[in-house]
Amino acid sequence: MARARVSLAVVKRLPKYYRYLGMIEQKGIIRVSSQELSSITGLTASQIRQDLNHFGGFGQQGYGYNVEELKSEIEKIMGINKSYKAIILGCGNIGKAIMNYRGFKSSGFNIVDVFDHGKKVGTKISDYEIKDIDKIEEYLKEKKPEIAVIALPTDVAQDVCDKLVDGGIKGIWNFASLDLKLPKNVVLENVHLDESLYTLTYYMNNLADYPGTKN
Amino acid sequence: MARARVSLAVVKRLPKYYRYLGMIEQKGIIRVSSQELSSITGLTASQIRQDLNHFGGFGQQGYGYNVEELKSEIEKIMGINKSYKAIILGCGNIGKAIMNYRGFKSSGFNIVDVFDHGKKVGTKISDYEIKDIDKIEEYLKEKKPEIAVIALPTDVAQDVCDKLVDGGIKGIWNFASLDLKLPKNVVLENVHLDESLYTLTYYMNNLADYPGTKN
Repeated sequence: MARARVSLAVVKRLPKYYRYLGMIEQKGIIRVSSQELSSITGLTASQIRQDLNHFGGFGQQGYGYNVEELKSEIEKIMGINKSYKAIILGCGNIGKAIMNYRGFKSSGFNIVDVFDHGKKVGTKISDYEIKDIDKIEEYLKEKKPEIAVIALPTDVAQDVCDKLVDGGIKGIWNFASLDLKLPKNVVLENVHLDESLYTLTYYMNNLADYPGTKN
Repeated sequence: MARARVSLAVVKRLPKYYRYLGMIEQKGIIRVSSQELSSITGLTASQIRQDLNHFGGFGQQGYGYNVEELKSEIEKIMGINKSYKAIILGCGNIGKAIMNYRGFKSSGFNIVDVFDHGKKVGTKISDYEIKDIDKIEEYLKEKKPEIAVIALPTDVAQDVCDKLVDGGIKGIWNFASLDLKLPKNVVLENVHLDESLYTLTYYMNNLADYPGTKN
């Protein structure tokens, strides 16, 4: 049976649940009620129950959720129980930060290769021998990575992106400051650092609009 | 007269308008209609007019917007026509990436100092001599920076954050994977990279839920 479409807001809360469940699990707690989850996350208990009900519920009335089970279910829902072959395009500051970021190790996100052009090709950065971005098409055919991280200058990002799409990439994690055009079957997730900074300065200058840190 | 509170969705679109206006300006275009802005941004013309009306409109019926003027107005609205003294806490991969990111130069975001602890203190990274995070309280009193970038491990981030708040910081740009607790007069903007990655993998595994790249 097809389930109802899950909204972006719910999808964005799943990682939060996952993070808090990890914290609770580390404290050795076995069961947690939606009320307890509410007091930790700042979301209402009914919101939490509603969110989790999208995926089948998992809790038992009056008994709460099994922490380990719920965490592992959310892991499956978010698809991080699997392993992904990822490539990074661009080995500037952002590319390097992603290469070395330890937070991803547990989420099945395996950076298999890093690409750039010109003089950087063939040099070694953090265990990666930088490959030639001009040969990305052959690489995609042969290695079939699933995720591409775009950490390129804006003026070349769309061109490279088109090649990635043609080469069968399934998901693009974009750090370049532009809106990439993609077919709907390739998932795009943006991290626009400049837009994030501008949001910060906006609220610093318009404190009356600031919704606060409640989730 | 107090204006109506502007929603987060509108605030998040302002940087997008700004980015597109910058692109249009670079092409030498002087005037742009909301219809033209619509075709470039993917937002509807009425949405664009509505968004800009929150701040006073700026356009003339049947005449469109002056590109340079509108860009400069949005700059003022977002508060990036000013200059901000920013400090970075933590000089790991993310801290380094922020130190070197060129995209901020134009937005008045001036990184004046970088802090860490232990052996890193006193070393030099990208023109910054790393200062001692244990002396942050005195530093805040003396130098009065406005923005702090938190690029610290999660287990120390809240402690440091409390000191920043006590020391009068106005805005926190948080890259640590936790929800910081802050008083409402200190603005928090999060960049949670792991949550962003999980959103990507969620949609890769649940393509029917994916809203697509339309804004």
